Parts: sequence; C-alpha cells; structure tokens
Amino acid sequence: MLNFEFYSPTRLVFGKGTADQIGGQLAPLAKKVLVHYGSDRVVKDGLLKRITDSLTASGISYVTLGGVIPNPDVELVREGIALAQKEHVELVLCVGGGSVIDSGKGIALGLKNPGLDIWDVYAKQLETTGAYPVACVLTFPAAGSEASNSTVLSNYKTQQKCGYNREWNRPVLSVIDPSLFESLPKFQIAAGVADMMSHIFERYFSNTEHTELSDALSEATLRTLITFGEKVVKNPADYDAWCQVALSGTIAHNNMLGVGREQDWACHKLDHELTARFGVTHGAGLAVLTPAWMRYVWRVNPKRFYDFAVRIMGQEDQPKAVAATIESGISALETFYSRLGLPSRLVKLGVDPAQIADMARVVTHASDGSDRPVGGMKKIFEADAKVIYEKAI
Amino acid sequence: MLNFEFYSPTRLVFGKGTADQIGGQLAPLAKKVLVHYGSDRVVKDGLLKRITDSLTASGISYVTLGGVIPNPDVELVREGIALAQKEHVELVLCVGGGSVIDSGKGIALGLKNPGLDIWDVYAKQLETTGAYPVACVLTFPAAGSEASNSTVLSNYKTQQKCGYNREWNRPVLSVIDPSLFESLPKFQIAAGVADMMSHIFERYFSNTEHTELSDALSEATLRTLITFGEKVVKNPADYDAWCQVALSGTIAHNNMLGVGREQDWACHKLDHELTARFGVTHGAGLAVLTPAWMRYVWRVNPKRFYDFAVRIMGQEDQPKAVAATIESGISALETFYSRLGLPSRLVKLGVDPAQIADMARVVTHASDGSDRPVGGMKKIFEADAKVIYEKAI
Repeated sequence: MLNFEFYSPTRLVFGKGTADQIGGQLAPLAKKVLVHYGSDRVVKDGLLKRITDSLTASGISYVTLGGVIPNPDVELVREGIALAQKEHVELVLCVGGGSVIDSGKGIALGLKNPGLDIWDVYAKQLETTGAYPVACVLTFPAAGSEASNSTVLSNYKTQQKCGYNREWNRPVLSVIDPSLFESLPKFQIAAGVADMMSHIFERYFSNTEHTELSDALSEATLRTLITFGEKVVKNPADYDAWCQVALSGTIAHNNMLGVGREQDWACHKLDHELTARFGVTHGAGLAVLTPAWMRYVWRVNPKRFYDFAVRIMGQEDQPKAVAATIESGISALETFYSRLGLPSRLVKLGVDPAQIADMARVVTHASDGSDRPVGGMKKIFEADAKVIYEKAI
Repeated sequence: MLNFEFYSPTRLVFGKGTADQIGGQLAPLAKKVLVHYGSDRVVKDGLLKRITDSLTASGISYVTLGGVIPNPDVELVREGIALAQKEHVELVLCVGGGSVIDSGKGIALGLKNPGLDIWDVYAKQLETTGAYPVACVLTFPAAGSEASNSTVLSNYKTQQKCGYNREWNRPVLSVIDPSLFESLPKFQIAAGVADMMSHIFERYFSNTEHTELSDALSEATLRTLITFGEKVVKNPADYDAWCQVALSGTIAHNNMLGVGREQDWACHKLDHELTARFGVTHGAGLAVLTPAWMRYVWRVNPKRFYDFAVRIMGQEDQPKAVAATIESGISALETFYSRLGLPSRLVKLGVDPAQIADMARVVTHASDGSDRPVGGMKKIFEADAKVIYEKAI
C-alpha cells in the first residue's frame, strides 16, 4: 500500500424527508445563500419551493440561479460568481446532480479567489487558497460530486473540458434524500449507475499491491451496485434499493475506496473527449469505453482482471483458464450494461467515427504538443487510445 | 434503512514514516500543544523524541503529560486539563492507543467546558458546547478512537466506567504509521483485533432491514480482519498485513459501517463491567463474551446469524440446516480467537464467578435502580446478562 492522506469532512444527511430539513442544517453556516440549480424540473416538481420554504423558515435569505446544463459551462459559473458577490452570499447551495454541484463548486472557488479568472483556474491548474462553503441537495446520484474533492467544467467556446481537484472543493453538507430519485428517467439512472461503477473501477484497476481491504470494499460496493442498480432501473420507485445505490455512489467517489493506491482514470479521460465533442452522457460513454479498455489492457495485470471477473462479475473460479475467465467477466459486464438499457457502441451515442484519430491525439497530448498519456495501470498513448476508440465505436 | 447523519472529518495520514511528519501537519492548527501519552515505552523506544523533534522543527512548542493507564482514569484527565489551562495549550496531541486518545478527548472536553466537572460530563451525560482539537499519533490500532466520536473514561474511586459520544470528540487529525506497530506484544495485538471485530459486530447484528451495502462492507472488513489479524499476530513485523488491519480498525469504528441501522452494543456494555472490576483487557473480554452472547440471542434473527456464519466465517451454505450452520459459525469464531492466543473463558482473564449476579444487576440497571436493558437486537435484562456471563465464565 502507498502512503496516503484521506480527508472527507462532508456531513451526509441521508433519508426520506431530509430535503425539507435543509434550512435547519444550514442555519449555523450561513445567513444568505445562492440556490443553484439546473433545469426547470426542480421548479415544476415543487422541490425548489420545498427548499426555499425550509430556508425561509430557518431565517436564511437566498438568491437563485438556475440553468446549469449537463457538462456545465464556465459561462454560467462566471454569472454565478458575479451574482453571489453582488448579493453578499455566504454559501452556495446546489440543488441538483453532479453538473449542478460541479458548477456550484466553480462558483465557490471563484468567490474565494476573486483575483483569478475561473477558467484559468481549471485550464491552467492555478493555485487557489480555498473556496466558499458548498452544500448540496442531491437530485440525482451518480457523479459522487456531493462528497468528492473534484469539479469538472466545460468551456463550450474552446471545446475544452477540465477538472480541478482540491480538498476545499468537498461540500460541507450533502443531503441525500433517495425519495427524490423515484421519478428519474430510466436512461439517466442507468448512466448514473455506470458512472458510479466507473468511479470504483478507476481505483480498483491498479498495479499497487497489498491493498486487500480496499479491494474487498470495492468489490462489495460493485456487487451491491450490480444488484441494486438493476433494481432501480427496473423500478425507480424502489426506495430501499435506492438507499443502497445512492450510498454506493457517494462512497464510490469520496476516495475511501481509492486510498493508498495508484489509480487509473484512463476511461474517464477518454470519455471526457466524447462529452466535449458530442455531448455524450458521461455514464453511457463510460459503459461503452470500459469493456473496450479492459480488453485492450488486461494483459498488464491478469490477476487483477481475473479477480474482477470472479469476485465482482461472479464468474466461475478457474485458475487454469485465466484469459477465458477474464473475457467472460468482461462479457458479463457488457451484458449487465445492456440489461440496464445502455447502448454498447459509441455510434449509438452520436460519436462520429471520422473524429477518432483526432480525439486520440487530443486526449493523449498536452497543449504544447508533447505526449501526455492517460491511465495509471497502463499508460495509454495516442496509438492505444485510437485502438480503444475503434473497439468501442 | 433508517435515516442517518454521518460526519467523519478526521484527516487520516497513513503510512510508513508519517509519524515524523506530525509537526508539519499540526503547524496550521496550533502553536502550543499538550503531548499526552501512556507508559514510558514511547519514551524508551524514542518515539516521543521523534514526535517532539518534529514539533520543534515546525515551530510548535509543547508540554508533556504521560502516565495514561489502560481504561484511563479521570484523575489524570483532571491533571491534564489544569496543566493545559496553565500552559495555554491550543490542541491535545495523543501519542498512544485508544486509552491515551480517550483520555486526551476528556482533556479537550474539559478545556472547552471549564464550568463543568469532567466526570459529571461522562457520568451524567451533561451537555457540552464543543471540545479543543485533538490530534493523534496512533501507537496501537484497536479502539478506533482515532476517528470515532466516542471516549470512555473510568473512575477508579467509584468503580464506574462511562462513555461520552459527541461529534466534536472526533480528532481533527490522526497519523497512522503501521511501522510503529511492529514491536507490539502478541496478546495486545490479538485483543486489538478482537476489539476491532467487535466494533463491526455491534453494528452488523441489527434487526434493521435494507442495509445491504453496509452489510456487505462490514462482511468484507471482517473477512479482512480474520485473514490479516492472524497474520499480524503470527508475525508482528508484517507491515503489509498491518496496513490492512490498521485501516480496518479505523473504519470499524468511524461509523461508516453502522449508518442507517439500529445498533447493538450489548457485548461492549457487558464487557465494561469486566474491565471496571477486574481490569480485563477490553478486546480479550469481548472475544469471550461475543460467542456466548451469540449463542444466547441468535434466535431473535436467525437470518442475520446465518449470514454471519456463511459470509463472514466461511461456513457452507446449507439453508436447510440453519441452526447447525449458525453454531458452526460461532464455533469457527471461537477457534479463530483461540488461534490468536486469546482465552475462551472469563476466569482465565481473572473474573471472579462470585460477582456474576452483581455484575448482571449493575449492567442492566440505571443508577436509580430502574431497568435499563442493554442491546439493540435483543434487549438484555438482568436475567439475560446473568446467563451470558455464566456461559462465558
């Protein structure tokens, strides 16, 4: 195991009806908040009113800023920073899923570092000194942003997508009320489950040895997601199943499962290019790329992929048939994604095959043109990325 | 699953050599600290000097207070409060195991609540408003106090042992350097492993339904402790095995595994009486009491004990032989404790059989004489406690 630091100070408030407790939870933290959200769905379904009623009842004033889109745009972040500065907001309350939370984290970074251009912070990885506090009422569990140190923004003008990881990005409070998830569309749920699983895969697939505890915890969480992820896709009104899925999504990305090990993240980086160019739903892209990546890289660490096949995908333990067992494990994962209703080819997600070569070049090079391979377990260079995209197209 | 809040803000700094980084870690938090420790072992083996050298190098001044005993005495806590007040200490740095950390948490509570008698805080569960920050360099992983919200003190004058759980008891920082554990005595290691396992059992054995994720995480951690706990007892120099055990001990008691469920804690309460009267090593007492408790209570929830036998203790899945499978699971647990070198009877730990009736009465009654049964899964009244002690004696 590698030495590590783990710091996850987000207070989780979990369960039915907890969304209506947000005012009481925030009262010790702020007198005025920016309520940040995405589509008008939260307005129409009454959630925003429940939230603002709870704030008002606890003596917290607020301004609102909606309009966050999937793969959130830095332009709205700029607007949020200006509004929050003008209104003397003390905390950013995100009512939404990963995109809203990532956008809110961007606003919180901008508020604390007013001398820096917020896109430069992401694109040039500028040093920041902290962030305003962020709280969340999660409306869609998938990204894990509600307890993670990461935020990803897109710049639609430059067609770039950049992440920024700092410990002060972790929300101070996240309310996870699984009863809010019961009306989500099935495709979105399925993509969310694939995203959660990918957050664990990116940590699980590692060459670091002596990580047996976090391996076992990762395997347990993945098996839980496979069982209960399918249940919530089949029946989004299954509250008890949602509890398992939602909590899995949070621990999948607060890094408890990734401590003390080299991590991979090649699939996430390959997928970022798809969302930036074609607006592919993040989890759906991952569900296509991950099996293709697995088939391309498993030979660098057959033991790890064999464990994946046997312990996570439930394949028969046949130590004399390692390659066959790994292939059947990868196939079982593809079958699982199909059962969730996710496409198995990138073209079905709107990806243009003609752009594969250019995507492979961009994803594996720095802006100065030098090689910048992705992936921890196996370094993926331009030629590798091209093969993986081609296998997945 | 029940609604819950989870808040675990302790920064974990984990790995070989991290003890020597304590000064740099604490520099942003305090200019003067109380270094609190137990026996002279940490003086003789040079650890205390490494710690104080690191503090000095980072410009942190300190006073020291050693002498914490197992089942720490409130009298030393009073002494620590007075010393820290006089010296204007800003943070309590515990260099030790659970006893030292529990004692340090008591000092930190006393410093923040100077108007309250510290024993009254524990014995009468007085409200407190917070605590001074506590940091730890762990020298023995077992109690989980390095990331828990709990502290237990003893009052040797009144023969009482009381716990006090508040979220501000959680240390701000815990350094876990498994290389420090390589010289621990085998009996102490074995008792520590049993203590960690008990922290999970107390949460796992529950009647709450729809807790599949935390069940699976608990089972994974217990299996890891069974495998690697035996390794570190057999070979305390096995650093890689220690990494699994030490991290298991932390998550066993930071409550990640206990969220959203009724918990039990009968065995811990039965054991407190043994340590208060006979100075029994906490984990060793638990290793005797737990199987006795299991045999007495399993019929209230056979499914849960069947899962324990099959998933944790590795017994054959025989749904038509539930009682036999449960018994073989409990026997396998006893055999495991024996392999660790732990006694299987309370008399071997110095418990006087003549006191069973009185212990059973005291542990199940409030100070005003009214019934106060222990245990969440099955309420243990005086007559039940007597049977369990008798089975274990």
